[in-house]
Amino acid sequence: MSTEMRIVFIVSDGTGITAENFSQSILAQFEASFKHIRIPFVDSVDKAHDAVSSINQAFNKYGVQPIVFTTLVNTELNNIVAKANGLILDMFQTFVAPLEAALGLKSTHAMNRLHHNADTDAYKNRIEAINYSLAHDDGQSNQNLADADVILVGISRVGKTPTSLYLAMQYGLKAANYPLIPEDFERGQLPKDLVPFRQKIFGLMIDAERLSEIRNERRPGSNYAKLENCRYEINEATAMMKKQSIPWVLTTSKSIEEIATTVLQAIKSDKTILG
Amino acid sequence: MSTEMRIVFIVSDGTGITAENFSQSILAQFEASFKHIRIPFVDSVDKAHDAVSSINQAFNKYGVQPIVFTTLVNTELNNIVAKANGLILDMFQTFVAPLEAALGLKSTHAMNRLHHNADTDAYKNRIEAINYSLAHDDGQSNQNLADADVILVGISRVGKTPTSLYLAMQYGLKAANYPLIPEDFERGQLPKDLVPFRQKIFGLMIDAERLSEIRNERRPGSNYAKLENCRYEINEATAMMKKQSIPWVLTTSKSIEEIATTVLQAIKSDKTILG
Repeated sequence: MSTEMRIVFIVSDGTGITAENFSQSILAQFEASFKHIRIPFVDSVDKAHDAVSSINQAFNKYGVQPIVFTTLVNTELNNIVAKANGLILDMFQTFVAPLEAALGLKSTHAMNRLHHNADTDAYKNRIEAINYSLAHDDGQSNQNLADADVILVGISRVGKTPTSLYLAMQYGLKAANYPLIPEDFERGQLPKDLVPFRQKIFGLMIDAERLSEIRNERRPGSNYAKLENCRYEINEATAMMKKQSIPWVLTTSKSIEEIATTVLQAIKSDKTILG
Repeated sequence: MSTEMRIVFIVSDGTGITAENFSQSILAQFEASFKHIRIPFVDSVDKAHDAVSSINQAFNKYGVQPIVFTTLVNTELNNIVAKANGLILDMFQTFVAPLEAALGLKSTHAMNRLHHNADTDAYKNRIEAINYSLAHDDGQSNQNLADADVILVGISRVGKTPTSLYLAMQYGLKAANYPLIPEDFERGQLPKDLVPFRQKIFGLMIDAERLSEIRNERRPGSNYAKLENCRYEINEATAMMKKQSIPWVLTTSKSIEEIATTVLQAIKSDKTILG
């Protein structure tokens, strides 16, 4: 292992997924390599000591302090992990103290406060949204489009499916998606099932070079993947979106999260920011 | 709006999704209500001033400082937002300073360092994993099961689909899922296509009362939803998993993230923690 490579632990009493995502974002700011080790569900004294052992073992093995992001709400467990031989970055205590002061409230220090979401309406909505988005993936169903929160349209391989599923999974939105195909361009019309719902249609678009690359991985050497054909489909889709006043986002070098966030901003732009 | 309700802003130069998830986790520690407003893509002086206006407007409207989580890597933009009339909780600067000291490196302060992931192999793997998991949802395909990273099994409505999609979306894992149905129980055998892959099968299980409730929402009053039938299927599935030495997790009051994390821990338990 090079000296530039650092071990990063995420120690959490929950899943630690959010803390891991955060540590990846902030460490992307450094020109170094990191290996992430997430230790979830640290909800007992024994597990806290196990986490300390893993951290100290990494220190002994590599001779350099591991970086340790912690999100432990229980003070006793937090104090145990704080003694590990690492650079401890305490995401919980760091922000809880100023929040307690500002809110004039003590935090509950109760673990798994979000965990109980499994029984809430928000959770049920999320599962329902996932099922809806799956059933309405790639124009599979024209039923119940009135229930959709958003209908994504675009040509093949532009990112409709992952974006729909992400919107459902992260935000509990019923996101349908519908392909635009050469037949639609020949008719010069949106697929007719979509016409009544134009207000909630949002387009995804992509650069021709990138699209050709993606399609070539899937069907090498096909007409479908040819740059010329990609250009044709993109031009036609763009013309249709302009004609129908459908807003769209360019997905070329965007992550799923960035595309989803852009769609969300557009959906919500009608609403006042402070409702 | 009650005095217990506080406005929470998330101001980010990226999507702000991670910071929003974090703020929800930490604020769940307080017995109060919060309204989250995410302001993403704050990557210019103008947008930073717009964010400040929104925060100050909320202060003027409600007469109490909004809570503001920021993740802005650009110092100039960060300084602008820091002057807003809110309780500023700076997730970036708070941790970058100790990291710079520990790593002996300056951070790049470059925005969107993770953004370029859209062109990396990790990103391609993620999209491929989502496509794989969709094609292998609910036993739809027996093809290429050898490529699966994990195969989830369980009776209907136990959480297989959302867990598979989450594992694909968040971790780029090819997660197939396969239903266990009464015919399997009558034969007393795993579906035969799964037999060669027993080592990567993981079970999901649920309490009968909860399952009956979930199934009743879907098909009210059906035999499928009856508590007695749910008990029968659960007993048979449990017996099969025991007989085949398949590990399983109880999903009853777990979130998708918690189920996915438990599956991941099981998959990785064969590997040494420090590879």
